[in-house]
Amino acid sequence: MNNFEYYNPTRIIFGQQTISRLNNHIPASAKVLMCYGGGSIKKNGVYDQVITALGKRTIIEFGGIEPNPDYDHLMKAIAIGRQEKIDFILAVGGGSVIDGAKLIAVGIPYPGDDVWAIVCGGHSVKPKTALPLGTVLTLPGTGSEMNGNSVISRHSTREKRAFASKLIFPKISILDPTTTFSLPQKQVRNGIVDAYVHVIEQYLTYPVNSPLQDRQAEGILLTLQEIGERALETPPNYDARANLMWSATNALNKLICMGVPEDWTTHSIGHELTAFYGLDHAESLAVVLPYLLWVKRDQKKVKLPQYGRRVWGLSGNDAEISSQAIEEMSRFFNRLGMPTRLTFYDIDPDEAAKSVRERFEKRGSVFGEKKDITPGVVAQILRLSR
Amino acid sequence: MNNFEYYNPTRIIFGQQTISRLNNHIPASAKVLMCYGGGSIKKNGVYDQVITALGKRTIIEFGGIEPNPDYDHLMKAIAIGRQEKIDFILAVGGGSVIDGAKLIAVGIPYPGDDVWAIVCGGHSVKPKTALPLGTVLTLPGTGSEMNGNSVISRHSTREKRAFASKLIFPKISILDPTTTFSLPQKQVRNGIVDAYVHVIEQYLTYPVNSPLQDRQAEGILLTLQEIGERALETPPNYDARANLMWSATNALNKLICMGVPEDWTTHSIGHELTAFYGLDHAESLAVVLPYLLWVKRDQKKVKLPQYGRRVWGLSGNDAEISSQAIEEMSRFFNRLGMPTRLTFYDIDPDEAAKSVRERFEKRGSVFGEKKDITPGVVAQILRLSR
Repeated sequence: MNNFEYYNPTRIIFGQQTISRLNNHIPASAKVLMCYGGGSIKKNGVYDQVITALGKRTIIEFGGIEPNPDYDHLMKAIAIGRQEKIDFILAVGGGSVIDGAKLIAVGIPYPGDDVWAIVCGGHSVKPKTALPLGTVLTLPGTGSEMNGNSVISRHSTREKRAFASKLIFPKISILDPTTTFSLPQKQVRNGIVDAYVHVIEQYLTYPVNSPLQDRQAEGILLTLQEIGERALETPPNYDARANLMWSATNALNKLICMGVPEDWTTHSIGHELTAFYGLDHAESLAVVLPYLLWVKRDQKKVKLPQYGRRVWGLSGNDAEISSQAIEEMSRFFNRLGMPTRLTFYDIDPDEAAKSVRERFEKRGSVFGEKKDITPGVVAQILRLSR
Repeated sequence: MNNFEYYNPTRIIFGQQTISRLNNHIPASAKVLMCYGGGSIKKNGVYDQVITALGKRTIIEFGGIEPNPDYDHLMKAIAIGRQEKIDFILAVGGGSVIDGAKLIAVGIPYPGDDVWAIVCGGHSVKPKTALPLGTVLTLPGTGSEMNGNSVISRHSTREKRAFASKLIFPKISILDPTTTFSLPQKQVRNGIVDAYVHVIEQYLTYPVNSPLQDRQAEGILLTLQEIGERALETPPNYDARANLMWSATNALNKLICMGVPEDWTTHSIGHELTAFYGLDHAESLAVVLPYLLWVKRDQKKVKLPQYGRRVWGLSGNDAEISSQAIEEMSRFFNRLGMPTRLTFYDIDPDEAAKSVRERFEKRGSVFGEKKDITPGVVAQILRLSR
């Protein structure tokens, strides 16, 4: 096991009828910037519950944060926050709203207007502080409600970049599974796949003698497989949604990656597919991961059979299990209604391979647990997604 | 799944050669009360590493904190802390030292001298603050390095009581597995069994549809079984000790008990056996748990077979698996050198049953996930331990 540091100060309040408890965790005198997305919270009752919980606190609303939150749009919230002397950020929504709110929280007190520098890590002035952030999660998947990560897009330049900071852990996150009841099935499906791939990125690498982290990761995968299809049912099943929500949080609260190598190739490629073709985040992952695993099956020759045996109950020799495990995973995604080929979206794999390869060549990007996923390997992976 | 709240702000620094990093996490101007046990840290190099890490900070030492830390002894540290205006508590040792340091941390700023009231929860003045606490863990087992719990004994009255407070989470805990290399084999064995029983207390209850928490718990049990015997080997195996240390921390950092019922009967009875007969904490657990499970096998009729199937790979009907699982667990403890019968210690089970029953009757104590372990049931359990 490698050395590591673990720190996660987010307070989670989980369960039915818990939104009212915001009142206990936001200062009574707070001036709150309430961030949300397209407005679905106004139809499903979540908005009203939050407003009631905030009581007499001053609230300024900032809606319209879309999937793959746009830097230029978020800068408007930062300007409002500075002007109005906001002192608490509350995100009500899924991972995109929370990720956007994280940039807002660190951007408001940041000296100067080049907030993009925070995202790219190229800041001449390192951010030293952030406004306190709370979240009410309405869409499980990204894990942003319990980590210090954020992914921000810049539509004007077709960029999508991740940043991490200890400043942006939410102080409190409310996880009420009933808030997911009005979600379109597609968004629930996306959340399941996103969480599943998060686990794979931290688990399916090379072994470093970390049996506990392996079991923790496998436990999340098994749970998602067990409850995945039930979580898509209508009318919604509380327990399935609750187990999905808690699994997705645990998939990326950074516990399972302590002391072990991580891959994240699928996410790096996926971000570009979203930037180029507008695929949903989870959709972009599902058209990459099976082919990454196939291309790197030799490097992952210990963990891939372990995954097949323990998570899919397969038996046989390692090579057979490895290819069967990849097929089982793809079939699981497909059963949830998630395609696993670029061609399903009428995207030409060869063209995608060329575009993404060029982007990574320009940036000099290499990925993977062994830093051996060159732009050429990326192209090889994408060409298989047909 | 039940509603829950999760909050754990302890920063964990894990791995070889990490004690020096105390320097980054304790204020440079701190006046440190350094708490430790019988002095083994002076022989194995840990003391020197800590002193070096603390550099020019003022250090006042308080050694001699024994297993089952004694209230009256700890009160001396509280008096010193108040007199010397200590502002940081550093515990260097195992669970007893850390538990003792937690009482010291909350006791120093507590108004008044009835600090025992904090332990019993009968305080007229609720503790509002605690000094910051850091730990250097040298003996894995209790999980105290990453939770807000403490168990304090009062030798003068033969009492042993647990208390919990959000004030006593360590700010930072250093987990360097090499600090365990000089431990007597018996203490390593105790740590494995203690951690194992912690998991069972939170897992082997009645089902509430919490598949992830089940898998997380089973993952720790499987890991302890996998590495347990190797962790006892001489010369010490780094990976086995590292996996033991991280498993023991995860066994009681309160993640696996979120949203699920908990038992803790074994601990409640075990504390009394330690108070009456001086058994090591882990020894007291191992002579109770098998018989509790047998007596309550009907109530635990879903989880006990699940434990047998998933953790021990057993097959058959539920009743067979349940009794086999209890036997497998006992045999595992025995393989580690841990007895599972009171008679091994020349303690008369009937006498123990009588003494502990009377104590609980006097207190009006009942335990268990269904609060149905009356003093009479306690006696029934102890009489079986022969």
